[in-house]
Amino acid sequence: MSPVDVTGRVDRLRRLLVERGLDGIVVTTLVNVRYLTGFTGSNGAAVVPVEGAVVLLTDGRYRDQAAAEAPGLEIEVDRDLLGRAAARVVGRWAVETHTLSVDAHASIASRAAAELVPAERVVESLREVKDDREVAALRDACRISVEALEWLLEQPLTGRTERQVARTLEQRMLDVGAEAVAFDTIVAAGENSAIPHHQPTDRVVGRGDLLKIDFGARVDGYHADCTRTAVVGPPADWQREIHQAVQESQAAGVALCVEGTPVSDVDAASRGSLAASGWLEHFTTGLGHGVGLLIHEDPFIGASHAGRLASRTVLTVEPGIYLPGRGGVRIEDTVVVRPQGNGPEVLTATTTDLREIA
Amino acid sequence: MSPVDVTGRVDRLRRLLVERGLDGIVVTTLVNVRYLTGFTGSNGAAVVPVEGAVVLLTDGRYRDQAAAEAPGLEIEVDRDLLGRAAARVVGRWAVETHTLSVDAHASIASRAAAELVPAERVVESLREVKDDREVAALRDACRISVEALEWLLEQPLTGRTERQVARTLEQRMLDVGAEAVAFDTIVAAGENSAIPHHQPTDRVVGRGDLLKIDFGARVDGYHADCTRTAVVGPPADWQREIHQAVQESQAAGVALCVEGTPVSDVDAASRGSLAASGWLEHFTTGLGHGVGLLIHEDPFIGASHAGRLASRTVLTVEPGIYLPGRGGVRIEDTVVVRPQGNGPEVLTATTTDLREIA
Repeated sequence: MSPVDVTGRVDRLRRLLVERGLDGIVVTTLVNVRYLTGFTGSNGAAVVPVEGAVVLLTDGRYRDQAAAEAPGLEIEVDRDLLGRAAARVVGRWAVETHTLSVDAHASIASRAAAELVPAERVVESLREVKDDREVAALRDACRISVEALEWLLEQPLTGRTERQVARTLEQRMLDVGAEAVAFDTIVAAGENSAIPHHQPTDRVVGRGDLLKIDFGARVDGYHADCTRTAVVGPPADWQREIHQAVQESQAAGVALCVEGTPVSDVDAASRGSLAASGWLEHFTTGLGHGVGLLIHEDPFIGASHAGRLASRTVLTVEPGIYLPGRGGVRIEDTVVVRPQGNGPEVLTATTTDLREIA
Repeated sequence: MSPVDVTGRVDRLRRLLVERGLDGIVVTTLVNVRYLTGFTGSNGAAVVPVEGAVVLLTDGRYRDQAAAEAPGLEIEVDRDLLGRAAARVVGRWAVETHTLSVDAHASIASRAAAELVPAERVVESLREVKDDREVAALRDACRISVEALEWLLEQPLTGRTERQVARTLEQRMLDVGAEAVAFDTIVAAGENSAIPHHQPTDRVVGRGDLLKIDFGARVDGYHADCTRTAVVGPPADWQREIHQAVQESQAAGVALCVEGTPVSDVDAASRGSLAASGWLEHFTTGLGHGVGLLIHEDPFIGASHAGRLASRTVLTVEPGIYLPGRGGVRIEDTVVVRPQGNGPEVLTATTTDLREIA
């Protein structure tokens, strides 16, 4: 794997810092350090001045790894990352107060000749829009996920436990190229499918069950997120009905994932569809979220989000209907926002139709 | 799984709070919330007054799970955990400034009628000493780990990649009862074994290689941590020599894991042994760390640690010799500190002798 070219990311960040009258930012949120430097170790920070060298700070364990992953950067190795960072900041600097601990902030403040101001999620805002390398990783992760699901749904699942089904799917994702699973797989059968974030149990999958599977592969640090709901044997009328309502709601949301759409419109479209079919009161979660180096990241889709979608933002759209004690349906895709003319690019490209499985 | 009885833990915490003249603590570090309430969800906080009910705060996704896992506690469900916590604190309260973000602290401070003071890792200090249930979980996790390793070392490994060996071991741990792996398994062959925290690659295991394996199972939230180094085929003299030096150093450290020993003595014993054999300069990491609900937790073993070991503290002891470009050896056990008369209880109970594998 070639090192990540972070030049464009750092340039965009610097422009935002200059706009805000800042001399730089101390980046301590590990996923943001990775984004801006390419470094994947478990301990690191980055000092990004508006002019001059970006410095990656880490400890001795990661000396070689940092050099390999961030070949263009200055690297400083020390156990006291915060002290080293503090020594380099002069003027007016942003710090990531949304994640930086009170004690770590005090440690920097007491040793830095700088005014420290909140970064206000500036790196997170950059991370919303993916570059080509990021989209490629997400595309791979989603392709692997979907391939594994297709394979799984061909296996006989009746008589196996939720836990067994989850593990089988996870192993398949690893077999076909995932570096890891993106998150603990949800497999929820029958009445358990009514629980939005069910953890797999020893419940056995049986005839007549809805089977909700929420899962994803990770590739190069990027997370796929996909949900499909199948039915074991022929569906009952109510199962067919709620599946169709969710499918329509999900398609309505996905269709609006194009450049320039107000984020709240995506939410309104999916909810409006469920309102029209009469099921809105049984949709009890958020509609979707950004996905990338984290499984849940900005932007979060909701009625109160004031922004518009930018091209190459990557989102999930995941409406559901949850009927406690009976069952539930969720359909979720990972989608790349594209210009109006192109339409959205669905990365988890497999049918959303209700499938009968054995 | 029956709910965790947290009464003793909360009582011990309250005694420490009273000693410090505090009216309570707002616990926001998720692993500390789990320790004090039994709640395992991904979003929660606990309000622990020195008198009166402990309150577990979480969001709507976890309503049922919180009730099941923390049956004796008052549970409050709201998206705004910090606001709900702030509304309950009056007087002089501890907050976990070592993990609480600057923004979250400000959010509590602006809404609480209380003086907020640093908790100074008070819950972490309690977590150092395990209760019977915790030791039982760690014992299970270590037994599963060792069983999986014994099985692995009987398989033919020559010609397989580090990555394949790691995955095979991880699958075996899951097969024999782990709920998850405790951390990403390190498998390092030949010259890679000289890298303390090597990530498995496609390097193929071959004859003459040292094979360092650092791995563990997780059971009920508790982590096992074990390292063994084997050799493929008959060892060379230098391999035998460094393995023996590490084995002696490790045994010297483990032998001191008894109640009342100064923590720095454990470090001194292992380092002294390596100094005597002439290899100390090639030991470049810390000697060990506490292990429990986190894979790395207090206490961290080092020369500067001023405390003494308490009974039922659970530690790793993991000296190594790392010869860049050639290879390395690490041996690591997870150990329960016991009274002098009993001696330490090694949970990862399998031979530390150098083993030839195929």
